[in-house]
Amino acid sequence: MEELYTRDPRPVTSSTQPKIEPWTGSPATGRDVRLAARRADGHDGRRGALTATTAGAAPGYVQGNLVVLPASMAADFLRFAQRNPKPCPLIGVSEPGSRTIPELGLDLDIATDIPKYRVWRHGELTDEPLSVAEHWRGDLVSFIIGCSFTFEEALLSAGVPLRHVARGANVAMFRTSIPTHPAGPFRGPMVVSMRPLRPADAIRAIQITSRYPAVHGAPIHIGLPGDIGIEDIGAPDYGDPVEVKADELPVFWACGVTPQSVIAATRPDFAITHAPGCMLVTDRRNTEYAII
Amino acid sequence: MEELYTRDPRPVTSSTQPKIEPWTGSPATGRDVRLAARRADGHDGRRGALTATTAGAAPGYVQGNLVVLPASMAADFLRFAQRNPKPCPLIGVSEPGSRTIPELGLDLDIATDIPKYRVWRHGELTDEPLSVAEHWRGDLVSFIIGCSFTFEEALLSAGVPLRHVARGANVAMFRTSIPTHPAGPFRGPMVVSMRPLRPADAIRAIQITSRYPAVHGAPIHIGLPGDIGIEDIGAPDYGDPVEVKADELPVFWACGVTPQSVIAATRPDFAITHAPGCMLVTDRRNTEYAII
Repeated sequence: MEELYTRDPRPVTSSTQPKIEPWTGSPATGRDVRLAARRADGHDGRRGALTATTAGAAPGYVQGNLVVLPASMAADFLRFAQRNPKPCPLIGVSEPGSRTIPELGLDLDIATDIPKYRVWRHGELTDEPLSVAEHWRGDLVSFIIGCSFTFEEALLSAGVPLRHVARGANVAMFRTSIPTHPAGPFRGPMVVSMRPLRPADAIRAIQITSRYPAVHGAPIHIGLPGDIGIEDIGAPDYGDPVEVKADELPVFWACGVTPQSVIAATRPDFAITHAPGCMLVTDRRNTEYAII
Repeated sequence: MEELYTRDPRPVTSSTQPKIEPWTGSPATGRDVRLAARRADGHDGRRGALTATTAGAAPGYVQGNLVVLPASMAADFLRFAQRNPKPCPLIGVSEPGSRTIPELGLDLDIATDIPKYRVWRHGELTDEPLSVAEHWRGDLVSFIIGCSFTFEEALLSAGVPLRHVARGANVAMFRTSIPTHPAGPFRGPMVVSMRPLRPADAIRAIQITSRYPAVHGAPIHIGLPGDIGIEDIGAPDYGDPVEVKADELPVFWACGVTPQSVIAATRPDFAITHAPGCMLVTDRRNTEYAII
């Protein structure tokens, strides 16, 4: 789960977040989740409306982070993503002005199918609506960035324990001293997610996540937080703290919060992102993204 | 490079070991090395005779550890290897009494084609000949166990630095608290080799060696030596010490010394092994052993 804000006063954890409301159709598909989000247009009480986190929704379906920018910035952001594939793996990009990304889902409306959005003006959060249809403009380009939910499913399937999942918490994330490769106005430090693992599980996790380059791939660091500028492993910059036990190593993956953090620092005139934990659920399967 | 003995008074390092003598044919193939070893039958001065380490000989060709046991113990040893594929990956087994293993090389004589052997009786080293033709018996079975030379070549090709190679030293090896899975009389702790790597190189090394399950495969441990019973990382049980710098992690692979150590503890009436660093060089290519 990826968060936009440091130390959000309302952290997205299972203890503070309402459960996903039920909808018809079981097991849920990516389209089921999108339609449930689409129904949640701000008028409460609609049957099956989805206004909460997508964590755990539509198991097996790829979820993605959303970044929407004016077309004038699209080329710079695309170059930024190309130069930083570990934190910023693009799994879909819209045509300018289009609200669809057909390769991720045929019945898909970027402006309505995410449970909750954030609207940004000059780097300031100005709205947190359930739909951005009224904010839409003809010059917007949507970028979908792979999400660690995909590889976490593979890790759990392989029996690699993930403490933050077991505790229903958000993953711990840190700003590092590792610079991203700049492009145009986009620059800034890489953000990483950290999962504490016993050494044998860490080795297995490196193998498994190496199979998923489109969702951050293999870790970028292991074991020595100070070497990447992390001074206090118990105090993440985003998400929830998680204990690293004496028989564990902290394992660090490039994080999809990086481009959002970079965008916040870049302060474009206008941008839209998903709200923390409220991802775009696609028609693609997690297993499709395993290269072997 | 894998050694049989703890703290051998004559450690196999480049500083103490004679260089490999030249032979005709360049670049050298596995067969070139075997023929050069075959010529070295104890009569010194033969042109092109090979009586020293095979480290660096016939680049690209698979080298293997040798274990020869009476056929009466073969089934137990095969079960031991099957149960312990990480330390004991068999890449070839002879027919009882046969001195050839056709799948590893057509012109191949187990009894003469290794530069130096060790002969063991009741667990005691009794001879270190250049040929075991005179020791051969009709009931012997030969086992060839994959060697880390194969994955080290892949690591170096990928730009992962290996300090012991750069220094011309033997890799550092440790007895661990990890038990092997017993079979018949064969049992004992796993031996591991340790290579100090910076975290990003360690992650890359895990990926690369995962491609080579027939030569020990991925590491079995990383970063926390005490957790596998290693009290002093600077004092290996076999091979040469190597520094682990502050920005590095010790990375541990299951080691082909394990079966030799187990055999030494099992004290069979009769056994033959290769001498440290003097491996069987085969016709097989290292690249054949990469599963992807």
